[in-house]
Amino acid sequence: MDFPQPQTLQQIASIIAAEFVGNPDYKILGMNEIHVVREGDIVFVDHPKYYDKALNSKASVVLINKKVDCPEGKALLISDDPFRDFNKLTRKFKPFQSSSNRISETAQIGERTVIQPNTFVGNHVKIGKNCIIHSNVSIYDHTEIGDNVVIHAGTVLGADAFYYKKRETGFDQLVSGGRVILENNVHIGSLCTIDKGVSGDTTIGEGTKIDNQVHIGHDCVIGKKCLIASQVGIAGCVIIEDEVTIWGQVGIRSDVTIKTKAEIFAQSGVSKTLEGNQQYFGSPAIEAKKWFKEAASIRQIPYLIQQQKSSK
Amino acid sequence: MDFPQPQTLQQIASIIAAEFVGNPDYKILGMNEIHVVREGDIVFVDHPKYYDKALNSKASVVLINKKVDCPEGKALLISDDPFRDFNKLTRKFKPFQSSSNRISETAQIGERTVIQPNTFVGNHVKIGKNCIIHSNVSIYDHTEIGDNVVIHAGTVLGADAFYYKKRETGFDQLVSGGRVILENNVHIGSLCTIDKGVSGDTTIGEGTKIDNQVHIGHDCVIGKKCLIASQVGIAGCVIIEDEVTIWGQVGIRSDVTIKTKAEIFAQSGVSKTLEGNQQYFGSPAIEAKKWFKEAASIRQIPYLIQQQKSSK
Amino acid sequence: MDFPQPQTLQQIASIIAAEFVGNPDYKILGMNEIHVVREGDIVFVDHPKYYDKALNSKASVVLINKKVDCPEGKALLISDDPFRDFNKLTRKFKPFQSSSNRISETAQIGERTVIQPNTFVGNHVKIGKNCIIHSNVSIYDHTEIGDNVVIHAGTVLGADAFYYKKRETGFDQLVSGGRVILENNVHIGSLCTIDKGVSGDTTIGEGTKIDNQVHIGHDCVIGKKCLIASQVGIAGCVIIEDEVTIWGQVGIRSDVTIKTKAEIFAQSGVSKTLEGNQQYFGSPAIEAKKWFKEAASIRQIPYLIQQQKSSK
Repeated sequence: MDFPQPQTLQQIASIIAAEFVGNPDYKILGMNEIHVVREGDIVFVDHPKYYDKALNSKASVVLINKKVDCPEGKALLISDDPFRDFNKLTRKFKPFQSSSNRISETAQIGERTVIQPNTFVGNHVKIGKNCIIHSNVSIYDHTEIGDNVVIHAGTVLGADAFYYKKRETGFDQLVSGGRVILENNVHIGSLCTIDKGVSGDTTIGEGTKIDNQVHIGHDCVIGKKCLIASQVGIAGCVIIEDEVTIWGQVGIRSDVTIKTKAEIFAQSGVSKTLEGNQQYFGSPAIEAKKWFKEAASIRQIPYLIQQQKSSK
Repeated sequence: MDFPQPQTLQQIASIIAAEFVGNPDYKILGMNEIHVVREGDIVFVDHPKYYDKALNSKASVVLINKKVDCPEGKALLISDDPFRDFNKLTRKFKPFQSSSNRISETAQIGERTVIQPNTFVGNHVKIGKNCIIHSNVSIYDHTEIGDNVVIHAGTVLGADAFYYKKRETGFDQLVSGGRVILENNVHIGSLCTIDKGVSGDTTIGEGTKIDNQVHIGHDCVIGKKCLIASQVGIAGCVIIEDEVTIWGQVGIRSDVTIKTKAEIFAQSGVSKTLEGNQQYFGSPAIEAKKWFKEAASIRQIPYLIQQQKSSK
Repeated sequence: MDFPQPQTLQQIASIIAAEFVGNPDYKILGMNEIHVVREGDIVFVDHPKYYDKALNSKASVVLINKKVDCPEGKALLISDDPFRDFNKLTRKFKPFQSSSNRISETAQIGERTVIQPNTFVGNHVKIGKNCIIHSNVSIYDHTEIGDNVVIHAGTVLGADAFYYKKRETGFDQLVSGGRVILENNVHIGSLCTIDKGVSGDTTIGEGTKIDNQVHIGHDCVIGKKCLIASQVGIAGCVIIEDEVTIWGQVGIRSDVTIKTKAEIFAQSGVSKTLEGNQQYFGSPAIEAKKWFKEAASIRQIPYLIQQQKSSK
């Protein structure tokens, strides 16, 4: 997430009333979560376990709950609650804006794009040329859609990430300031949900086709020319490389990668990174060949019991 | 379900043209299904197997298809078809009202609550303060929503219970007269469905967070501070106690209880009541530890077959 | 899919700029995919493996990518790309029409049918008498709905088939020209998706009741008095006969048949045709009795290992 214009360290420190270490005029371009952080960004960390990772990341500024040594060329923001203050910054620079119009006046919509009745297009949304957006679709603020994209009825692009910190008082949500990006020639079925990134983008690659009732979590990056069948659920921060095929009702846990040309059979549950050019099945998913061998072996148990008895 | 004002036994009997046993002026406050029935209520029963349960329940009036002995202090309504007549009463006291406005004039909406475009708010709905109801949400009549609630786009609150009696002529629906209740600080994702109770309430407890595409059936009672991930399906009349965690694509059958702080792993299928403070996995779900042991044992079968052969 | 009026072989050949074999005045009534083709129809075939099937089908005209012998009484259309040209014909005779009204002026809506706010009713839709169509429903063009039908909020009827041909340049969609048909007394829950047929109809039979978040793919034919629970996913071209019961989260692959009075337990995955009057469970689904036997046998493995050891 970029700030609308660069901020100084001092400006940011004053917004969140934090002490800072570094040059007060140090320029900050934006803010991001650890897995998508870039030079010029603020990142936050509130657990000693992750201090090193944050301090050694590409982030230029680390929002942290302990006064540690500042890495050279970087800056620190010291806060008793980095999570709370990261949220404060997201709310400051990407405040929620309610809409009174069905299609926001700040939305940019390309030539020959059709938007059917009852569809909501939020603020600062960009939609390319030759798209068809069917009825009752919801497109949250800042979503970007390429050319020749088809979105079927009732689909929701850009709802908040399902990302909570457990506190004594209850669940505290990490505020989402990211976006959804659909590249050219993407087709999305009916009643899909694609959540925005927490600070970065959830991206669906060029030419990928998605069936109905598919859920794609925050910060996923789906490659080009993938095929995703109905009722698949993909948790947050999953990377799916190009030309992957995922059949119906598959579930994929967060933070894993599905590599190029992998194929996942229906109803599988993916719990770890999968290599490309192979077929997978089962919950948890393993190589399909292995799965079918295991299933066949189960059918041998009665024979084994029989043998056991007769050998006595 | 309460009647708008108390009715007498005679009044109710005349609406459904039923014979009655008891004082004609006996006061009746409402009506409910057997599992949520209260003193002052009518309950119905149409199968001898359940007569005793209905007659000994808290119900003050039993709508029954046989002239049995009336329990002391109670009353009976005798009907050749209690199911049909229970529906007649629901339709009489909670008739379906169509809406011509997107936001009903009888809806009460609290201060600083934002309702985005294309959202439907039905009759007699109550929404608290500081809520955000995103676009294309459908809120059926009589739903009640607390303060600081967030509902993402396309979600549906209060559709009818999926509850049918099989008759020779086809499926006959039990008419839903209940409500959906969301307590304070509840978050609901996009494209969720939470059905109303048949006669009582479907309740989501304070501070519970629900991800996208979750289905919650009629008369469920979900506790406080639960976390329910995407594409979970919970059938009717399920009780989920506090601080339960349910991961993606889990299915839970009707009429079971998930006790405090239980955690159910992704894609599990719950077929019975689960104790609290434990982890579960599999379909049907068992203790996660046991499941992983069983999975490991399957991988021993080829070795067993090998041993079997070599022992001959 | 019928043409608005019969076409001659020559007219069709000139639309797609194809060579033809047969009488130029040969009458053509419509076009269909191979599994629903009728006399008078065009069918297309672009792979030698399926030439015989297409040439021997009920189709009167075969759109084919090789100049083969023309079966007696039939005609051929020779094209270098039958898939592309079949799409050209669908687009010509069933062009996508955008809508500017929420309820199209060409829609026919029966007496005493209620349509709630924010529902979209497309062009040439027919809805019968005494129906309730709840809010935020999307009904695509040409859908036909019988009498006494209830459709809950957010459901989508008639989105495009998820049917793509893989080409070097990416996925090329087979254009959908079919319809969705709901017969009398059908109930559809909230947030269901029922896709239109590619060239034929997706049909839900009389008296069938469907719960929330169910997906039914293109060209499915669901029988009468079926019960389909929440979050079931049914792929394209599935035939479900009468009085079938399908419990929650079941998945069914394309091109299979579920016969009369079969019952499929929750979360099962159906990979082949299932006989009627039986119960099924598992993924892949097998007879429920067998499944439970296999599950019990797995629990014997530790005993087998134990025996193995002690027998040494």
